[in-house]
Amino acid sequence: MRLRNKPWAKDMLQAYPQYVIPSPEQHRGNWGAVFGNDHPLHIEVGTGKGKFITEMAAANPHINYLGIELYDSVIVSALEKLIEAELSNVKLLNVNASELRKYFAKGDVSRIYLNFSDPWPKKRHEKRRLTFKSFLEIYEDILVDKGEIHFKTDNQGLFEYSLLSFSAFGLLLKYISLDLHNSDFEGNIMTEYEEKFSKKGNRIYRCEVQFR
Amino acid sequence: MRLRNKPWAKDMLQAYPQYVIPSPEQHRGNWGAVFGNDHPLHIEVGTGKGKFITEMAAANPHINYLGIELYDSVIVSALEKLIEAELSNVKLLNVNASELRKYFAKGDVSRIYLNFSDPWPKKRHEKRRLTFKSFLEIYEDILVDKGEIHFKTDNQGLFEYSLLSFSAFGLLLKYISLDLHNSDFEGNIMTEYEEKFSKKGNRIYRCEVQFR
Repeated sequence: MRLRNKPWAKDMLQAYPQYVIPSPEQHRGNWGAVFGNDHPLHIEVGTGKGKFITEMAAANPHINYLGIELYDSVIVSALEKLIEAELSNVKLLNVNASELRKYFAKGDVSRIYLNFSDPWPKKRHEKRRLTFKSFLEIYEDILVDKGEIHFKTDNQGLFEYSLLSFSAFGLLLKYISLDLHNSDFEGNIMTEYEEKFSKKGNRIYRCEVQFR
Repeated sequence: MRLRNKPWAKDMLQAYPQYVIPSPEQHRGNWGAVFGNDHPLHIEVGTGKGKFITEMAAANPHINYLGIELYDSVIVSALEKLIEAELSNVKLLNVNASELRKYFAKGDVSRIYLNFSDPWPKKRHEKRRLTFKSFLEIYEDILVDKGEIHFKTDNQGLFEYSLLSFSAFGLLLKYISLDLHNSDFEGNIMTEYEEKFSKKGNRIYRCEVQFR
């Protein structure tokens, strides 16, 4: 994603603590208190401009959602959507995915979404891919038992790599589509990227994997 | 594959016992004697008209190959190729894939190829797919430890199904290409089907899985 400099972003994020959670490490092991209920918590790692997480929250009022995004200039777009949507079951974390253990205890998270993650195509950048082994270890440490990762991308190389990485980690492949938009999968909610790249004719790949 | 009736097929298969092995159950546990060496044995289940297995054998003289095909009218085409190629490291078995345990003991086979297997798309025919659980159990029973299945197809539904079936069985995914003919995979030998359907623009999917 091209990053535009938005010098006002930091101030705006801090102005909405009801949506962009300050000091999230305080809620480790007790996220229900943040939402005022004990619904399952689903997180999207790399939430970008927030279309997916906002629409998922609107469609599923009995799930709590957290969108995780490192870049200020991107997450402010997600914040703008949350302000408009006025939903109580979706919030944002402005943190790095590599530090999720600081914010979530084992079992805090019921499901993880990875959507159109940066493919980092160069072999020397493999460790940055959100489906690299060290990230899977993090996800396992914060998910419930038999927790799931739902992953979609239009990047063939990243999808192939991720299937190998999931298998090597021992994850169970529960669902796969090699052409999501021409499949019988129902209720797909598109990300900004997905709308743009599927219009260009790119295939969308999707899978669900489960820790055993 | 459309089957043409060839009433002379049975006679021709019997006329070449050096290529189409009679009474294969006699060689169970001792296939080296058939080839006169102790090279690894790779089998193709559903060998069709035999282009793949014949060219693989020509390219890899230190591997023994067996092409397995049930239909007389199809396997005669493979036999014709073998007669012409005059190779000592490839032979045919005119038997049913569901009975492989009768012909192979544990460890007899080092690798299994499945190429463009019948997709049996109807759910009620799932058990006939060569990547259904009961076939994987057979393959495990005849393969060496950590033996591999190399699978390719242009059928998206069969490939998706097979990836799920492999994962549920606990197989390790070692290689995958979601577009083989536009990948950096080297030394691909095409089957008759593959030539035909890739010319039509169909993507070819390929994977390698290993028993753990």
